[in-house]
Amino acid sequence: MRISELAERSGTSPATIKFYVREGLLPPAEKTGYNQVSYSEEHVRRLHLVRALVDVGGLPIARVRAVVAAVDDPAVGLQEVMGAAQRALPGREGAPPPSPSSLAAVEELVRAQGWTVDDGNPGVVQAAAVLDGWVAMGRKDLFDSLPEYARAAEVVARADLARVWPDAADRDRSAETVVVGTVLGDALVAGLRRIAQEHVARATRPVPRPVTRTPEELT
Amino acid sequence: MRISELAERSGTSPATIKFYVREGLLPPAEKTGYNQVSYSEEHVRRLHLVRALVDVGGLPIARVRAVVAAVDDPAVGLQEVMGAAQRALPGREGAPPPSPSSLAAVEELVRAQGWTVDDGNPGVVQAAAVLDGWVAMGRKDLFDSLPEYARAAEVVARADLARVWPDAADRDRSAETVVVGTVLGDALVAGLRRIAQEHVARATRPVPRPVTRTPEELT
Repeated sequence: MRISELAERSGTSPATIKFYVREGLLPPAEKTGYNQVSYSEEHVRRLHLVRALVDVGGLPIARVRAVVAAVDDPAVGLQEVMGAAQRALPGREGAPPPSPSSLAAVEELVRAQGWTVDDGNPGVVQAAAVLDGWVAMGRKDLFDSLPEYARAAEVVARADLARVWPDAADRDRSAETVVVGTVLGDALVAGLRRIAQEHVARATRPVPRPVTRTPEELT
Repeated sequence: MRISELAERSGTSPATIKFYVREGLLPPAEKTGYNQVSYSEEHVRRLHLVRALVDVGGLPIARVRAVVAAVDDPAVGLQEVMGAAQRALPGREGAPPPSPSSLAAVEELVRAQGWTVDDGNPGVVQAAAVLDGWVAMGRKDLFDSLPEYARAAEVVARADLARVWPDAADRDRSAETVVVGTVLGDALVAGLRRIAQEHVARATRPVPRPVTRTPEELT
């Protein structure tokens, strides 16, 4: 198809499509003749993935490029694709490393959950930074809720992975599912969490204490 | 205390402290004499909150200001403080509104969960945008996992709110807990989710098929 059709089908302007090709997010069109090129269904699909990562996932272009490179390399296993997607998410660039005591608290939580993970998992540092924030605010009491958050995180991870393995024989489709699940999953969970917070707040808010009035006020 | 002591106790440079005061994130110091000012414990605590929102939550200064204003206004109820914190989180600025069909799917999910929420809850639009991303990628099959994600989101929300109500009589402390829970909770859940994903992926990854070799390869 021509670039105009690709633009219409993907809701992306021809200028943006050319920009994505220059940036290596989209393979170049096939040359079909002198001064003529053709885009394929593969381009439509890839363009949708790129747009989802940019628009919904909020990833900068350089990170989308790294994720797309992992998806496209058949030598990269699904677990490594997941790692690439995790590292692409907005992180803690330039922030100081978390304290050893918060790192130890996260590692203890991981052990208590019976989880097996690499030391390099980016989630460990990210969670430890949150604990540092709590400690700095004098709110070590919030640590009590960690097992509950870990339980919720495992429910989310099971939902993420349940969609990947049935397709595992189709490596390209699985790689795409891993990326979509990892990158868009944060936005989905964050969105549903705001809704659930409002529901839980309404359902459980404490009963207001009766106002005590003096006899003078009542007259 | 002097600005040098406040800087040391909060790990924030005097220049940054002065910047936060100018930007309205921190109340000005009390004037204690000609050319002399004094900062209080209140400043230490507020500075920790601001740093947590900026460093861990990744909020831009203008949004921290809006959150802090809600926390400081005793006329603002806890549920409205939560709303202010939710709206402060990185959202979908400039992104097109989600499709009516995805909005309807989220509303249907909310009904199916028995949740009661306002139409204006920012999570509805955020979740619907993720569904649009799935649809654009031809992955409507992922909709099947929505109830599982909703269940996980409710577990998270219960952990968020469980820490607020015991303090509800102390409005300022509760308001701070709501903000910390809402803003840092996303980072915590995202971090724990990456860890849990790796664990679940290791624990459930499909058994590789045995490699079939020709007799020539075996010799």
